[in-house]
Amino acid sequence: MNNKIRWGVLGGGGDSLIGVLHRVAASMFDAYQLVGGAFNPDKQISIDFANQIGIPTGRVYKDLNELIAQETALPEDERMQVISILTPNFLHFPMAKQLLEAGFNVICEKPMTMTYAEALELQEIQQRSKTIFGLTHTYTGYPMIRQMKAMIANGEIGDIQKVDAQYYQGWINSIIHDAAQRSSTWRLDPAKSGISCCIGDIGVHAYQMLEFVTGLEVTSILADLNHLYDDNQMDIDGTVLLRLGKHKKGVLRASQIATGEENNFTVAIYGEKAALKWEQENPNYLYLLEDGQPLRVLKPGHDYNHPVSLDGTKLPPGHPEGIFDAMGNIYKGVAKAVRGQQYNPAEFPGMTDGVRGMHFIEKAVQSHTDGNVWVKL
Amino acid sequence: MNNKIRWGVLGGGGDSLIGVLHRVAASMFDAYQLVGGAFNPDKQISIDFANQIGIPTGRVYKDLNELIAQETALPEDERMQVISILTPNFLHFPMAKQLLEAGFNVICEKPMTMTYAEALELQEIQQRSKTIFGLTHTYTGYPMIRQMKAMIANGEIGDIQKVDAQYYQGWINSIIHDAAQRSSTWRLDPAKSGISCCIGDIGVHAYQMLEFVTGLEVTSILADLNHLYDDNQMDIDGTVLLRLGKHKKGVLRASQIATGEENNFTVAIYGEKAALKWEQENPNYLYLLEDGQPLRVLKPGHDYNHPVSLDGTKLPPGHPEGIFDAMGNIYKGVAKAVRGQQYNPAEFPGMTDGVRGMHFIEKAVQSHTDGNVWVKL
Amino acid sequence: MNNKIRWGVLGGGGDSLIGVLHRVAASMFDAYQLVGGAFNPDKQISIDFANQIGIPTGRVYKDLNELIAQETALPEDERMQVISILTPNFLHFPMAKQLLEAGFNVICEKPMTMTYAEALELQEIQQRSKTIFGLTHTYTGYPMIRQMKAMIANGEIGDIQKVDAQYYQGWINSIIHDAAQRSSTWRLDPAKSGISCCIGDIGVHAYQMLEFVTGLEVTSILADLNHLYDDNQMDIDGTVLLRLGKHKKGVLRASQIATGEENNFTVAIYGEKAALKWEQENPNYLYLLEDGQPLRVLKPGHDYNHPVSLDGTKLPPGHPEGIFDAMGNIYKGVAKAVRGQQYNPAEFPGMTDGVRGMHFIEKAVQSHTDGNVWVKL
Amino acid sequence: MNNKIRWGVLGGGGDSLIGVLHRVAASMFDAYQLVGGAFNPDKQISIDFANQIGIPTGRVYKDLNELIAQETALPEDERMQVISILTPNFLHFPMAKQLLEAGFNVICEKPMTMTYAEALELQEIQQRSKTIFGLTHTYTGYPMIRQMKAMIANGEIGDIQKVDAQYYQGWINSIIHDAAQRSSTWRLDPAKSGISCCIGDIGVHAYQMLEFVTGLEVTSILADLNHLYDDNQMDIDGTVLLRLGKHKKGVLRASQIATGEENNFTVAIYGEKAALKWEQENPNYLYLLEDGQPLRVLKPGHDYNHPVSLDGTKLPPGHPEGIFDAMGNIYKGVAKAVRGQQYNPAEFPGMTDGVRGMHFIEKAVQSHTDGNVWVKL
Repeated sequence: MNNKIRWGVLGGGGDSLIGVLHRVAASMFDAYQLVGGAFNPDKQISIDFANQIGIPTGRVYKDLNELIAQETALPEDERMQVISILTPNFLHFPMAKQLLEAGFNVICEKPMTMTYAEALELQEIQQRSKTIFGLTHTYTGYPMIRQMKAMIANGEIGDIQKVDAQYYQGWINSIIHDAAQRSSTWRLDPAKSGISCCIGDIGVHAYQMLEFVTGLEVTSILADLNHLYDDNQMDIDGTVLLRLGKHKKGVLRASQIATGEENNFTVAIYGEKAALKWEQENPNYLYLLEDGQPLRVLKPGHDYNHPVSLDGTKLPPGHPEGIFDAMGNIYKGVAKAVRGQQYNPAEFPGMTDGVRGMHFIEKAVQSHTDGNVWVKL
Repeated sequence: MNNKIRWGVLGGGGDSLIGVLHRVAASMFDAYQLVGGAFNPDKQISIDFANQIGIPTGRVYKDLNELIAQETALPEDERMQVISILTPNFLHFPMAKQLLEAGFNVICEKPMTMTYAEALELQEIQQRSKTIFGLTHTYTGYPMIRQMKAMIANGEIGDIQKVDAQYYQGWINSIIHDAAQRSSTWRLDPAKSGISCCIGDIGVHAYQMLEFVTGLEVTSILADLNHLYDDNQMDIDGTVLLRLGKHKKGVLRASQIATGEENNFTVAIYGEKAALKWEQENPNYLYLLEDGQPLRVLKPGHDYNHPVSLDGTKLPPGHPEGIFDAMGNIYKGVAKAVRGQQYNPAEFPGMTDGVRGMHFIEKAVQSHTDGNVWVKL
Repeated sequence: MNNKIRWGVLGGGGDSLIGVLHRVAASMFDAYQLVGGAFNPDKQISIDFANQIGIPTGRVYKDLNELIAQETALPEDERMQVISILTPNFLHFPMAKQLLEAGFNVICEKPMTMTYAEALELQEIQQRSKTIFGLTHTYTGYPMIRQMKAMIANGEIGDIQKVDAQYYQGWINSIIHDAAQRSSTWRLDPAKSGISCCIGDIGVHAYQMLEFVTGLEVTSILADLNHLYDDNQMDIDGTVLLRLGKHKKGVLRASQIATGEENNFTVAIYGEKAALKWEQENPNYLYLLEDGQPLRVLKPGHDYNHPVSLDGTKLPPGHPEGIFDAMGNIYKGVAKAVRGQQYNPAEFPGMTDGVRGMHFIEKAVQSHTDGNVWVKL
Repeated sequence: MNNKIRWGVLGGGGDSLIGVLHRVAASMFDAYQLVGGAFNPDKQISIDFANQIGIPTGRVYKDLNELIAQETALPEDERMQVISILTPNFLHFPMAKQLLEAGFNVICEKPMTMTYAEALELQEIQQRSKTIFGLTHTYTGYPMIRQMKAMIANGEIGDIQKVDAQYYQGWINSIIHDAAQRSSTWRLDPAKSGISCCIGDIGVHAYQMLEFVTGLEVTSILADLNHLYDDNQMDIDGTVLLRLGKHKKGVLRASQIATGEENNFTVAIYGEKAALKWEQENPNYLYLLEDGQPLRVLKPGHDYNHPVSLDGTKLPPGHPEGIFDAMGNIYKGVAKAVRGQQYNPAEFPGMTDGVRGMHFIEKAVQSHTDGNVWVKL
């Protein structure tokens, strides 16, 4: 028996990209061993997949119920210790709920739930069950995001006076401008995707990131969303004005109709003494601006970085790491928590991020629907 | 007697940077000859300055009244043909008014007036006097901005679905965080600087640029401004939500507390077919984005550019031109108009830009003061 | 029994960064299962390490001899199929030699051998043993390098007329300027590190890359190396003039005294019709230049890329992948070869790259020593 | 009479781009007044041109002889003080010679002469005539190049250990690959253009810049040039190995067949303590690299710059200036010299740069022709 964390996965089979991402991430620090799961609603397909990826099939289950029943029947030192939920969005909440109630630690893909009410319910269960819950706001795993958070917490940019985040993509253009496609895609169907498309899918990443790096809480918002067509029920673009305290203002922009943009997520935090800027598509650069001083560009792996940033870099400076490495860092953080080791809260986002995120999504839609008015968070 | 345009200047003497900028710009295409003006309220200083910059002193005047009196007494073919107003902001309107009424063509620094009412009055005078009026929204003179405007007008990015402008500076930090300074600087005194600082000074550039490149008009706005301190009466930061037609939305962000930013003015226009992005601090690059296609970077002086862009480039590709060259292009455009030559409206901004800009400023402040509500433009 | 490739590793234990890199890479496509190896000269440490990374200890061996003896005693369908050599440089050759002679497929870290003679010997053995041999010129695994190679092979830039590569680092500054350190570090000791430091370590990467992407062979070289101090026996900087055919010239620059540079490896290939440029520190951008056309920036994961490039991208555009992913692609390519599947030669570098690389290193030193004269390759 | 410098121009009439560049540059600091010249071999065309650009025609001359005869007949305080030579290359030397002999100060376009012998002759004349001679290596006028030179002189990067310059263009592709064009263009005809095309036109810029910013002298070189076609007599590409002292090495690369490159001139200087890098196409950024420290990006107009850099910046940070402004700075420097004011040698390049540059060109061709051997400079 080795001392790796016994890890199970729900979903993520077949050609699933997210499945690959989680398996690679889990492998990065030799901390997890995939022991089983339910990769597909069809058990035989799950078993075939287990064979394909080369894991034993004895703990491949028909469904979550079977998994919980059989795993809880195992001695504690054989039972799965962490289970990752990579299933379609609408299953995140019910699966997480069952798992947390049964005492399993969970890593859950975004969105955590479909509604804020569900999020609150999940939070209550987790607090009761004293389980560990990681939510894959993957971008927080980049070393320079961790560095940004650490520098701000350390007072290196002074009191924050302005925040600005952008998350621009263009992929929905090919759908939205075609009446047939926009009426049939699941992403634009509230019954299948919840009340928001753009804010729910990517705006919430920007929101979570702003709170993550600043350590501040957004207190109220005013949202202006865009549906682009009268027959489209879901936002595919939006700007959200933010308050993070008296005189602390900000703005968050998200779009899926920003033609030609890939995954252009940027964050800028302006403090009294300095500012920090970061771009997801070039994640290994952190820009430090000071009035009257040369711009400085910080990169991963240097001694000048904070320990929590260095902890997320595997190779020496000049060897670019990417999104798989960011996810790997989150898995590493969860592993520390599961093993009862000391860790920095920056190492993985969790329940609070999920609860606040769902609240943000619902309030953004409400602010927009009510006529672009301020709503408290 | 040569065929250069007889040019006069008000203000811009001594160490004035803006004076240098206008003189260099006027020299760029050998179109203007500086024949006189009133460079300083003290006539002797004006004369000394004329000597210093090597122009005859015979047409250096005590003040605007003397200038108008004596110039209008000259035969038409000796009279100043264009007069540039480079005096402090509060003098722009009264001087422009007098000059236009007297039949002079005017190039005026920004802001055109202190209020929207004055702007309307000036517009009425100009229309009546059939004079030419250029307003130095200098950034519109960059070749790649002209290219952007021409491409959009030509349908190359399709119907516009989203606009985004940012104008971030950090220079006011050194003032705003010092109680003594922020209560004494003229820029934060509404009596001296009008009702707005950040929106009035730079936000209006972003607003004008959005309308300039898209050819669209902003129809309504919702502004959220920031004063940062309770005892500061003027905005030094703000975000403005924009409507440019049904389902055409946008956002404009301006700040003077964006720590460490120099003159970070960017514009992004997203169309159904493609997008265009531009950054003032690297003005010779125009980014063309299409879904699923490689990013393209257009640069000045290439045959692939529209004529109005090529008209604003003096050297072959790879020789960077800058802000002086942009201003030179505006002077070149005004020269064409004064000489009755054909020109493209993209060659210089004018009265309409000034009127709409002042309206925007007042409405942005109103929207904010009324509680971040939509106001029509 | 699953269908993963049975994989063994020599070296790479403890805190070895290279060990992490190979294990993560091997995990990326679920193709390899680490079944054992000799991670450390001390068998107990090896066993402890196996426990630490969670693999069975039954096939942890004392040394290579034990490994070969016991593995070859196993039935063919249990025997290790690929063995990676991550030991100190001087062991690469003897270990590879033994393994290839015993019929094992090998993935070998760079440098393949210490001398060109050894390289030739190894090549002969491999050809005789019909084994698969991968050499980890890791940078060739980046999707945009594969795209570069495919575009050039496809004639998209026309006949090549100039090549230019740079590999600049600054890390040796802290050693070289200190007399004590430069006389004691193993890297500057020919007995331990072979005849070259800079060319042998990084120049050879640039050389291999130029041949890799162009499909051309360098025919002769003229090298000018720099030792910086008289008491330093090894090159730490050098420029190499290249011939790749009649009128096809190029230049390769490498340095470890390029102060402040991290791992600044760039390649530019100029063809009659177009040029391609790439930078290792931003590996997800490929620049396509044509005279008189806008610069184009190609990125991974788009349909416009060649299949061999797309094969090396796991996520949609906009999600940066890095050096671990590049190594993962090389492991994926070797896996195809081991399984007898069809693969593109671009998928992994091998014996020929190793042999030519060792030849290049020796000839570069000879060219320099002989007074910067042309030598044939 | 004003106190501007009386300025004459030879050549630069009609649509000449270089004429525009010099007139704008001369106007930038109100220091020069164009009083006449010989703009064209046809005097009537010269007069028409004078009218067109709005200067008096009284001092428009038929040719240089007439100019010298009549100007020297004028009282000293009316005579032209500086004369710029913008004529075709082969006229630079004879015109400069006559002017310097007659006691005029000269600003001369590059190349200064056609041969090194001529350069030496000119130097001798200038030293005898005690005239001021500016050579328009325009790029040295950029503020960040001046900053680079000042920082190096000030010891801020320590002892220099490596230099690297690149000057890549692609424009000759359209000529060189067409047999008819390459045999007929004057640029590839040694009788009309001297012994070198690429090294003579742009390589020499890179050479001059390396000596300019470092303050070092290149002591010997080894050149490898490329003609690309057997029937082409002139180099259109080349790499030059450099020695700047014991253990101080470098490399200079120049090309006119670097497909798609515009004017990609870069300089990198690596010192023991730090490095500085600069790119002509983004001239307002100076990169400062230190091992283990964040990259720093210096920009013009900041207090952290040296006075000689600030002297070359007209507007506050964030307002990009370009190549016209660089030339303006050189004219400003010459004006100071002509007026007997104190100036920094960095303010304009002159005779020594011209002499050394011609030497470099001839020696580069010799090194290549003799079989890529070292030649002393």
